[in-house]
Amino acid sequence: MALIVHKYGGTSMGSVERIQNVARRVAKWRAAGHRMVVVPSAMSGETNRLIALAREIQAQPDPRELDMIASTGEQVSVGLLAMALKALGTDAISYTGWQVPVRTDSAYTKARILSIDDARVRADLDAGRVVIVTGFQGIDELGHVTTLGRGGSDTSAVAIAAALKADECLIYTDVDGVYTTDPRVVPEARRLERITFEEMLEMASLGSKVLQIRSVEFAGKYRVKTRVLSSLTPPDVPLQVEANSGTLITFEEDTSMEQAVISGIAFNRDEAKITVMNVPDRPGIAFQILGPIADANIDVDMIIQNQSVGGMTDFSFTVHRNEYQKALDVLEGKVRETIKAGDIVGDPKICKVSAVGIGMRSHVGIASQMFRTLSEEGINIQMISTSEIKISVVIEDKYMELAVRALHKAFGLDQPAAAIGA
Amino acid sequence: MALIVHKYGGTSMGSVERIQNVARRVAKWRAAGHRMVVVPSAMSGETNRLIALAREIQAQPDPRELDMIASTGEQVSVGLLAMALKALGTDAISYTGWQVPVRTDSAYTKARILSIDDARVRADLDAGRVVIVTGFQGIDELGHVTTLGRGGSDTSAVAIAAALKADECLIYTDVDGVYTTDPRVVPEARRLERITFEEMLEMASLGSKVLQIRSVEFAGKYRVKTRVLSSLTPPDVPLQVEANSGTLITFEEDTSMEQAVISGIAFNRDEAKITVMNVPDRPGIAFQILGPIADANIDVDMIIQNQSVGGMTDFSFTVHRNEYQKALDVLEGKVRETIKAGDIVGDPKICKVSAVGIGMRSHVGIASQMFRTLSEEGINIQMISTSEIKISVVIEDKYMELAVRALHKAFGLDQPAAAIGA
Repeated sequence: MALIVHKYGGTSMGSVERIQNVARRVAKWRAAGHRMVVVPSAMSGETNRLIALAREIQAQPDPRELDMIASTGEQVSVGLLAMALKALGTDAISYTGWQVPVRTDSAYTKARILSIDDARVRADLDAGRVVIVTGFQGIDELGHVTTLGRGGSDTSAVAIAAALKADECLIYTDVDGVYTTDPRVVPEARRLERITFEEMLEMASLGSKVLQIRSVEFAGKYRVKTRVLSSLTPPDVPLQVEANSGTLITFEEDTSMEQAVISGIAFNRDEAKITVMNVPDRPGIAFQILGPIADANIDVDMIIQNQSVGGMTDFSFTVHRNEYQKALDVLEGKVRETIKAGDIVGDPKICKVSAVGIGMRSHVGIASQMFRTLSEEGINIQMISTSEIKISVVIEDKYMELAVRALHKAFGLDQPAAAIGA
Repeated sequence: MALIVHKYGGTSMGSVERIQNVARRVAKWRAAGHRMVVVPSAMSGETNRLIALAREIQAQPDPRELDMIASTGEQVSVGLLAMALKALGTDAISYTGWQVPVRTDSAYTKARILSIDDARVRADLDAGRVVIVTGFQGIDELGHVTTLGRGGSDTSAVAIAAALKADECLIYTDVDGVYTTDPRVVPEARRLERITFEEMLEMASLGSKVLQIRSVEFAGKYRVKTRVLSSLTPPDVPLQVEANSGTLITFEEDTSMEQAVISGIAFNRDEAKITVMNVPDRPGIAFQILGPIADANIDVDMIIQNQSVGGMTDFSFTVHRNEYQKALDVLEGKVRETIKAGDIVGDPKICKVSAVGIGMRSHVGIASQMFRTLSEEGINIQMISTSEIKISVVIEDKYMELAVRALHKAFGLDQPAAAIGA
């Protein structure tokens, strides 16, 4: 039988009754003979409650102490889930990050996993126990508690699956899989049975918030078969049905020949665009503009530099909309003077729409199809950025739904296609 | 300057404002140059909340998992207190029991401390930090989290003080010290400036619930100067005043010659009496009666066997009132038949009143004074038990207040006496 890792989010752990449902689901898998490791999040609201308490005491909480506090939510969850399993007659034991141990660096509140010791967990699996491990946390080399940052339990689950060489990591969540686009925007959106981890990476980073992006990176790096599936089905749904539901994140060589060219249309409305006009086109100019932005801890997404005309160029980039004004202030404050730029213009009312697909690599004409579709809808493209498996455009945000729907249809994503996945 | 351990109860840690007050108090001691270790309890109500949650999941929670959960309350407290100190500009760091580590046996939910490693705490003290350590918990040799049981934070504080050879351990609580008796019963009750740990042990075990009894045992065993004092004084009261307030638990050789004969009158209304009549007076009979009681996990307090008359005797003992019926059932169910006893009679409406005093050792006539006083009030004595520094009597519980007041006066405890303590 297989070694399986389950991960449950805070909503699934949000009440006694829900925890009992999680236990019933896990017990079903265990009863089928699988070796089970479970990574639950804190009960919904608990981590926020703890962080709010910390902020009341210290406006900028000390990160090391904040991790000490914030990590307790998951510790309660694992203990309760172990009890719920024992109440069902299924032997179980819980461990914190430091007990496994899950070793991380010392970047408190956003630590990265360095290694996971599998000996202790494996011994309990060998003894027939379900092993329940806290998500979201670890221990650094000084023996301090660390946390991995928001959504870190996804990463914990995948990392633990990698360390144990698990057959599959199942992420139970409140959506039933990864869709060709957001069904709230396009009702015809379809669930993908499979997606490659490279596509998932692009979808995740583009705002399809199904999985934390670091967990997808982990899945890719350590080749962990990871499935996103619904936690809302009844816990007693037949195991074979459940095991094949949701969306499997897989690897390119596993995909069938009929893989669709485009897997999904992602979008992100949280961005804002800034253009520095008439910049002297000389080496180092990008650094002179973006260095101070980075120093101000502002993340930059797309970066575009147009071709030079007469030794002068326009330099554009996008930032999170919340940091738009801060970024403008940095540029007006220091950068313009230094580089002798012209006007600095910005637009917070933009959005980014992307077509993502591993099949794009071997198909020409995807970009032109995308541009033609938008053109036919009368939508002006302000910026374009491409990667091997993605084309992103920046457009005026009022056109977002229109663009997503048009592209979804143009790439045939609304067609029930045996061609997609298995 | 001195090495000082402070312990704060759940009420003192019960809100953001109260935690900030604790921090102000600790910062005052640190600013005076003392090396400070602080042991706070969980925020009031938190441990009960966690245990209730566990019980909803599993009626009899798995003890190992219960400790995993219950220990988080203190972990949150230490982090918040460290932040509150940092917010005041006082460097501080928090540690859990497993980080110190505080090693215990594996008796989950009621573990006993085996050893405490002082290296880590000492290094932080040397670096000028206030070190905040979770009470109530430790780690066993398998690396599982353990808790010490209700009130365990007192024990943690005294044990840490012992391990660090601290100059004094200050237990801040919601009473301002140890009294000659309960002021709610005798308004003239006086606060003792000093009490020996032996007396404190008797007072604690007899229901003066100022300190957990194991913490007093620890204080005695490792000769930790321990002070019980009020957490309700303003945090900015002058340090020298605060340092001399409350009641100091000290050692016999430290007490002055003028030590009063009796230090206090303790009482306990939670007991019930059971007598097995006409028991054959033969070896093993006590075990045959009390063995099944112990097997049923019922604690026995006083045990009295009257002199044999014609080969038959009466055997009496007291149990907690909550376990009275259970104890009767055990006796009626099995024991009576086995030992061929006569009637089994019981009385749940009793109480125990005790006079406690280290000076009793060298003074004859204390017992007779006690019996005369009760006789003058028309109070019948049902059982008597004595130790080197204590005389306890069982009386009808309606006479309790009368007996306590009469004895308090008869032993001169209502007199403001320079003779008591320092």
